Amino acid sequence: MSDHPISRFDVPDLDELPDDIRARILAVQEKSGFIPNVFLAFARRPAEFRAFFAFHDALMDSDTGLSKAERELIVVATSASNNCLYCVVAHGAILRIRAKNPLLADQVATNPAEADLTDRERDIVDFALRVAHDSANVTDDDLAAMRAKGFTDDEIWDIGAITALFALSNRYASVVGIRPNDEFYGMAR
Amino acid sequence: MSDHPISRFDVPDLDELPDDIRARILAVQEKSGFIPNVFLAFARRPAEFRAFFAFHDALMDSDTGLSKAERELIVVATSASNNCLYCVVAHGAILRIRAKNPLLADQVATNPAEADLTDRERDIVDFALRVAHDSANVTDDDLAAMRAKGFTDDEIWDIGAITALFALSNRYASVVGIRPNDEFYGMAR
Amino acid sequence: MSDHPISRFDVPDLDELPDDIRARILAVQEKSGFIPNVFLAFARRPAEFRAFFAFHDALMDSDTGLSKAERELIVVATSASNNCLYCVVAHGAILRIRAKNPLLADQVATNPAEADLTDRERDIVDFALRVAHDSANVTDDDLAAMRAKGFTDDEIWDIGAITALFALSNRYASVVGIRPNDEFYGMAR
Amino acid sequence: MSDHPISRFDVPDLDELPDDIRARILAVQEKSGFIPNVFLAFARRPAEFRAFFAFHDALMDSDTGLSKAERELIVVATSASNNCLYCVVAHGAILRIRAKNPLLADQVATNPAEADLTDRERDIVDFALRVAHDSANVTDDDLAAMRAKGFTDDEIWDIGAITALFALSNRYASVVGIRPNDEFYGMAR
Amino acid sequence: MSDHPISRFDVPDLDELPDDIRARILAVQEKSGFIPNVFLAFARRPAEFRAFFAFHDALMDSDTGLSKAERELIVVATSASNNCLYCVVAHGAILRIRAKNPLLADQVATNPAEADLTDRERDIVDFALRVAHDSANVTDDDLAAMRAKGFTDDEIWDIGAITALFALSNRYASVVGIRPNDEFYGMAR
Amino acid sequence: MSDHPISRFDVPDLDELPDDIRARILAVQEKSGFIPNVFLAFARRPAEFRAFFAFHDALMDSDTGLSKAERELIVVATSASNNCLYCVVAHGAILRIRAKNPLLADQVATNPAEADLTDRERDIVDFALRVAHDSANVTDDDLAAMRAKGFTDDEIWDIGAITALFALSNRYASVVGIRPNDEFYGMAR
Repeated sequence: MSDHPISRFDVPDLDELPDDIRARILAVQEKSGFIPNVFLAFARRPAEFRAFFAFHDALMDSDTGLSKAERELIVVATSASNNCLYCVVAHGAILRIRAKNPLLADQVATNPAEADLTDRERDIVDFALRVAHDSANVTDDDLAAMRAKGFTDDEIWDIGAITALFALSNRYASVVGIRPNDEFYGMAR
Repeated sequence: MSDHPISRFDVPDLDELPDDIRARILAVQEKSGFIPNVFLAFARRPAEFRAFFAFHDALMDSDTGLSKAERELIVVATSASNNCLYCVVAHGAILRIRAKNPLLADQVATNPAEADLTDRERDIVDFALRVAHDSANVTDDDLAAMRAKGFTDDEIWDIGAITALFALSNRYASVVGIRPNDEFYGMAR
Repeated sequence: MSDHPISRFDVPDLDELPDDIRARILAVQEKSGFIPNVFLAFARRPAEFRAFFAFHDALMDSDTGLSKAERELIVVATSASNNCLYCVVAHGAILRIRAKNPLLADQVATNPAEADLTDRERDIVDFALRVAHDSANVTDDDLAAMRAKGFTDDEIWDIGAITALFALSNRYASVVGIRPNDEFYGMAR
Repeated sequence: MSDHPISRFDVPDLDELPDDIRARILAVQEKSGFIPNVFLAFARRPAEFRAFFAFHDALMDSDTGLSKAERELIVVATSASNNCLYCVVAHGAILRIRAKNPLLADQVATNPAEADLTDRERDIVDFALRVAHDSANVTDDDLAAMRAKGFTDDEIWDIGAITALFALSNRYASVVGIRPNDEFYGMAR
Repeated sequence: MSDHPISRFDVPDLDELPDDIRARILAVQEKSGFIPNVFLAFARRPAEFRAFFAFHDALMDSDTGLSKAERELIVVATSASNNCLYCVVAHGAILRIRAKNPLLADQVATNPAEADLTDRERDIVDFALRVAHDSANVTDDDLAAMRAKGFTDDEIWDIGAITALFALSNRYASVVGIRPNDEFYGMAR
Repeated sequence: MSDHPISRFDVPDLDELPDDIRARILAVQEKSGFIPNVFLAFARRPAEFRAFFAFHDALMDSDTGLSKAERELIVVATSASNNCLYCVVAHGAILRIRAKNPLLADQVATNPAEADLTDRERDIVDFALRVAHDSANVTDDDLAAMRAKGFTDDEIWDIGAITALFALSNRYASVVGIRPNDEFYGMAR
C-alpha cells in the first residue's frame, strides 16, 4: 500500500517548512512513531496548519467537562456520518486508546444506535449528529433539553464546536485526499 | 429588534477580554461602525476566537488566485445551502460590496442555478456545493475536471478550504445562535 | 442586468393581449411603477393568466382570518424551501411591506427556525412547510392539532391553499424562467 | 366504505351553491354517473373552485401538441410521486380510458422506469418528474434538450404547467383529505 | 403487451428444470390458471429458487399471529415504497383476495396514510416501513412500543422478517426485470 | 462486554434444536472456534434458518465468476450503507481474510470512494450500491453497461442477488438486534 499518494496536492519537504511547523511534526513523530499524514498534507499551507492545530488543541486536548474519550466519540460519530476515511480511521484509533475499548470505534462508526454507549454518551452523540447534519434547526429548546439532562453550557458549546471543527476537517481531508496511515488501522485493537 | 439576544451563551464584556481580542474587536468596530456579533459571541472562547479569525484571515483576506468576491460567493452559496442565517446575512452584505452588485447575494442564496454568474463563478459554486454536501465523493476525477477548466491547485484548495471553514462557521453560528446585526440586511443594496 | 431575458418563452406585446389582461397589467404598472415580470410571462397563455390571478386574488387579497402579512409569510417560506428566485424576491418585497419589517423576509427565506416569529406565525410556517414537502402525510391529527392551537377551519384551509398555489407558482416560475424585476430586491429595506 | 367522509372540511349542499358551480357539478354527474368528490370538496370555496377548474380545462381538455393521454400520464406520474391518493386513483381511471390501456396507470404510478412507455412518453414523464421535485434546477440546457428531442415550446410549457397544476392539486387533495370515489378504482380495467 | 420479455435474463424451458421446481411451477399454474413470471425468472437458479420459496412459504403461508391479509399488507406497503412493479402488482392482487377488499391494495400502494386501515393494521404498516427504510435505527424502545400495543414477539419478528424478505424480493425483481403477468392487474377488482 | 444479550428475542438451547440445525452450528463452531451469533438468533425459526443459509451458501460459497473476496466486498459495502453493525463487523472480518488485506474492509465500510479498489471492484461496488438503494431505477441500459465492461450475465445476477440477500440480512439483524461476537472485531487485522 506504500505506493499510494498521501495527498492529492504537493507535499512540502520537512526541511522547507517554517520552524514551528517542523517542530510540531517532529514532536508528533517522536511520540507516535510515525507522522500522521494530516500534518504533512496541511503543511502546504502554514497559516491554515497553525489555525487548524490551534483549534484542535483548544478542543481536543482538554478534559474539562467532556472527557477526552467523549471528545473523540464526537469525532468518530460525526466523521463516519460524513464518510471521511482519514478522520474515522485515525480518530477511531485514538478513541480505542482514550476509551480503553477495542470495539467502540467500529460500533459508533457503523451505527451509533447499536453502539455500547452510556446514556450520557448517547446524548452527546445524538446532539453532535444533529449539529453535523441539521444545525439550522437547533433551537433554544434543544439547548434547554441538554441543560435539563445535566450538561453545562461549556459542555454543550464543546459538543457543537468539536462537531463544527470536524465538519471542517472532514471536508479538508476529503478534498485534499489525505490518506490514513496504515499504522492507524490496527492500533489498540 | 434590539431586544433579541445576540448569542445563546454568555457574552463577556469587552474590558474582560485579552488585549489582542479586544484590539481586534475595536478595530473592526472602527472600520465598520458596529461590532459584528460573531466577534462578541466567539470572544467567550479566546483560543477558538484566535483560531477562527486566523483561519478566516488566511482564506478570506487574500486575492491571489480567487478574487475576494469569488471567496464571498463561496461563503454565501454554501451557507445558504446550510440555512445559516448569520453567515448568509453578514456575508451577503460583504458579497454585495466586494462584487459591486446589489442582486447577486440574494440570487445565490436563493438559487445558484438562477443567479447571474459567469461560467467560472458557476464552476466555483458548483464545486463548493459538492464539497459542502458530498465531500466524501470528491475524487481525483473531480480535481482533474477543475484543472481542465483552468483552475490552479491553489484555487481548488481555496474553494475546498473556504467551504470547509464555513461548514465549521455555519455550525458554530447555528448552535451558538449568533444573531446577525440589523445593519447587515440593508447594506450595499 | 437589463439585458437578461425575462422569460425562456416568447413574451407577447402588450397591444396583442386580450383587453382584460392588458387592463390588469396596466393597472399593476400604474400602482407599482413597473410591470412585475410574472404578468408578462403568463400573458403568453391568457386562460392560464386568468386562472392564476383569480386564484391569487382569492387567496392573497383577503385578510379574513389570516392577515395579509401572514399570507405573504407562507409564500416566502415555502417558495424559499423550493428555491424559487422569482417568488422569494418578489414576495419578499411584499412581505417587507405588509409586515412593516425590513428583516423578516430574509430571515424566513434563509432559515425559518431563526426568524423573529410569534408562536402563531411559527405554527403557520411549520404547517405550510409540511404541506409543501410532505402533504401526503398530513392527517386528521395534524388538523386537530392546528384547531387545538386556535386556528379555524378557514385559516387551516387558507394555509394549505396558499402553499398549494405557490407549489404551482414556484414550478411555473422555474420552468418558464421568470426573472425577478431588479426593483424588488431593494424595496422596503 | 360508504361511511368514510369525503373531505375533512364541511361540504356545502348542492342547492346552496352558486348556479354556475351547481351546473358544472350536475353536468359532470350526468356524464360520469357520479359526482367526483373533488367537485364537492372544492365547492366550499367558489372562487377557488372556479379558478381550479379554469386551470384544469385550459390544460387538460386540449389535445393540441400533447395528446389527452399524455396529459393524464403527467398527472398520474407526478401525483404518484407525491403519494396523492385522490389524484392517482381518479386520474389513473381517466388515463386507462384515454390511453385505452388497462395496465399503464398502475405501471406509471408504481414505477415509471418499468412502465411500457414510448421514448416520447418517457421524455415527457422524466421532465415532469424533474419539475415536480427539482424545478429550481431546471435550466436553459434542459429546455434546449427537450427542443432537441422534438418538443415544441408549447409542449414544454404544457408539461411544466400540468405538473405545476397537480403540484397544487395534490396538496389541496391531501390537506383537504378528499376521498377518491369508489367508482374510480375499477373503471376501465 | 404479450411481446414484452418476462426477464432480462435467459429463462429456462420447463422441461429442463429439476423435477421439484417443475412440479412446483405446474402446481401453481394448475391453481392460478397461469404461471406467475417470478417462478420462471427464478428457475434460472435452482438453489436460489428453492431458498426463496422456502422463505416465502415459511412467512406468507402462515396465519398464526398475523393473518394472511396482514402479511400481504406488509408486502404491498413496503414494495410500493421501493417502487417494485412486480411485487406491487402481483401481491396487490393477492391482497385484494386475502382482504376481500378491492380498494385496499391501491390505497396502501399509493399512500398508506390515506388507506382504510384499522389501528392494528396501521401499526403493522408503520413498523414495516421503518424496517424497510431505517432498520438501523430500530431500537429496544421500538420493540417495547410494539409489545405495549399488544403485538407478540412472534408477530414483531414476522413483520420484520416479511419486510426483510421483500427487501430481497424487490431488489431481485427490479434487477432481473421480472414483468408482472397481465392477469394480475384486473384480478379481484 | 459479555453481558450484552446477543438477540432481542429468545434464543433456543442448542439441544432443543432440530438435528440439521444443531449440526450446522456445531460445524461452524468447530471451524471458527466460536458460534457466530447469527446462527443462534436465526435458530429460533428453523424454517427461516434453513432458507437463509441455503441462500447464503448458494451465493457466498461459490467462486465461479465473482471471487469470494468480491462477494464479501459487496456484503461489506452494502451493509455499511445500511448501517448494519452485525453484517459489517462479521463480514468485515471475512473480507480481510478472503482479500488478504487488513485495510480494505474498514475502507469500504467507511467510504467506498476512497477505498483501494481495482476498476473491476469499483464497478461491482457501484452497481451493488445502486441495487441496494435505488433498485427500481435499474434499467436495461445499466445491464448493458455492465456487460460492456466485461461482466457476464451470471456475474451481474450474482451482484444483484448478493445485494438482495444482504438487504434481507441487514434488516433481520437490525430488527432482531443480533450482536456481533467480540471475536470478529480484531480478526485478521
